[in-house]
Amino acid sequence: MATNKQVILRDYVSGFPKESDFEITTTTVELRLPEGSNSVLVKNLYLSCDPYMRSRMGKPSAFALAQAFTPGKPILGFGVSRVIESGHPGYKQGDLLWGIVGWEEYSVVTPEMHFKIHDTDVPLSYYTGLLGMPGMTAYAGFHEVCSPKKGETVYVSAASGAVGQLVGQFAKMMGCYVVGSAGSKEKVDLLKNKFGFDDAFNYKEEQDLSAALKRCFPKGIDIYFENVGGKMLDAVLLNMNMHGRIAVCGMISQYNLEDQEGVHNLTSIIYKRIRIQGFVVFDYFEKYSNFMEFVIPCIKEEKIAYVEDVAEGLEKGPEALVGLFYGKNVGKQVVVVARE
Amino acid sequence: MATNKQVILRDYVSGFPKESDFEITTTTVELRLPEGSNSVLVKNLYLSCDPYMRSRMGKPSAFALAQAFTPGKPILGFGVSRVIESGHPGYKQGDLLWGIVGWEEYSVVTPEMHFKIHDTDVPLSYYTGLLGMPGMTAYAGFHEVCSPKKGETVYVSAASGAVGQLVGQFAKMMGCYVVGSAGSKEKVDLLKNKFGFDDAFNYKEEQDLSAALKRCFPKGIDIYFENVGGKMLDAVLLNMNMHGRIAVCGMISQYNLEDQEGVHNLTSIIYKRIRIQGFVVFDYFEKYSNFMEFVIPCIKEEKIAYVEDVAEGLEKGPEALVGLFYGKNVGKQVVVVARE
Repeated sequence: MATNKQVILRDYVSGFPKESDFEITTTTVELRLPEGSNSVLVKNLYLSCDPYMRSRMGKPSAFALAQAFTPGKPILGFGVSRVIESGHPGYKQGDLLWGIVGWEEYSVVTPEMHFKIHDTDVPLSYYTGLLGMPGMTAYAGFHEVCSPKKGETVYVSAASGAVGQLVGQFAKMMGCYVVGSAGSKEKVDLLKNKFGFDDAFNYKEEQDLSAALKRCFPKGIDIYFENVGGKMLDAVLLNMNMHGRIAVCGMISQYNLEDQEGVHNLTSIIYKRIRIQGFVVFDYFEKYSNFMEFVIPCIKEEKIAYVEDVAEGLEKGPEALVGLFYGKNVGKQVVVVARE
Repeated sequence: MATNKQVILRDYVSGFPKESDFEITTTTVELRLPEGSNSVLVKNLYLSCDPYMRSRMGKPSAFALAQAFTPGKPILGFGVSRVIESGHPGYKQGDLLWGIVGWEEYSVVTPEMHFKIHDTDVPLSYYTGLLGMPGMTAYAGFHEVCSPKKGETVYVSAASGAVGQLVGQFAKMMGCYVVGSAGSKEKVDLLKNKFGFDDAFNYKEEQDLSAALKRCFPKGIDIYFENVGGKMLDAVLLNMNMHGRIAVCGMISQYNLEDQEGVHNLTSIIYKRIRIQGFVVFDYFEKYSNFMEFVIPCIKEEKIAYVEDVAEGLEKGPEALVGLFYGKNVGKQVVVVARE
């Protein structure tokens, strides 16, 4: 028997999530699988805070991005875990996994979309970001969706976040001119000095987003990696080049609004022949091993910089998760449940 | 010497165009090219009224869809013409052409994007529509941009117009389920009974466009051929299927607005993996001969129905052109300048 601290959703969230939408409870669990189970019992080590999780906090809806969380139960998200007991032939005690788990100390999971962690001479928490879902999102979103070519101009919004910081660096590796935006001086400094973006701006300090983009891209934008939506998308549309591509990864500025902002400049897409393509990383996980072959050497050779914002302890989880929607995190937001 | 009636733009248009934005003038011209000219002197027979022409009526702007018309000069558009005199080696007296000409009885043109008309056992006016720019738009837009597959569901807005009526028929030929919308009972009847759409509705009689689409597409929309924009696009986004495609041909509902309507449901494109692709027919004219090989037999075997709305006389041109933006035309709007 063990205590199992959990982060419980109190009720469906509307508007901006608050810490009080969650509560921390402690139950006791038997650290043993039921007889005949083919599930896996894991101890959770690191949890990932991701913007898409907002779409699971609202009431169930045909229009929601993903299946709703259940009030009264722990919320779910990507995490890194150690197998304590396995009823599944593909996993054994001691294995390290990353995939969807409960926000709790111990979870029983059906390992259908869980990846085994083989490389352990990188920080394990990286499997919530650079080496996990956000890394794969950046890699597939940029290389598969944006159709990039050397010398093109690339704009990334929410550029210091888990996905944005990587998209910018992948684009630089390809020989693109890369500009990012973020919401504080500290983040803009990171973009320029740590992640090697060619230029960056603080969108909160710009009166006119279209003018800011024109200043950074006097010859226009070939590729926009969309993480925010709303007014930013409107400004981007005015600055896109002919045959430009917009990969729509997320629209974090819209997730907490009851009524989404209108985007007004869509007629631009006609004569500019713009392609706007929504995508979801789940469609690309078959390429995860290719991604690992590419990215692990980049880390070891220090060709990629990566910044995490680490909250210590599951009880800090709600604050860290809610903070995402206020842009409080600097880099990938991780919650440490246990350091082994 | 001959008289040359012309349709002149009085001044840049803002808001909905009015007949009074144009005036009919008559000048005299010498029906002879200047010495050494490599242009072509033509007699105009049929003129085409197309929604994109609105974008040429406004003030010159970096954001305009096409180069602005010049106040005090005749407006320009696609037309069918007979060569009176040619200084260009590729054309000779008596040739029939279609391409951009002035809205006037006689034009001097530089034949850079003019096509020679070889098939004359179809009505010549068809080269302003089915066999001209709108036909090629429908063909390329559907086959090249929509990536259609047999059995998919296809929605066409402004479906009785020059492009829409053809898209619907091309989609039926491919084995798709096709629904169109239009703005009157007469047009809806045409869609169902003349053009062979599986279903159709009058958008002006629907309180809730999304509900209308859900009624017509209980299993969702795979392909949307976008001609109107605004509220219709918003309703469509809610009804698109996973991996749906939206080919953006035009957004006629927005062209006369000072501030374009906001489109609110763009987050749908993320989890539904929707592709929105703007396109312009000029990029596809290299395939015009393939299109003709396909479409001429269709006409002769009566596999394609085609409806024109014919205004008789250049002096009826402004009324016909302005009428497009009020949905007055039933089918392709043509202006007859001269019947030979």
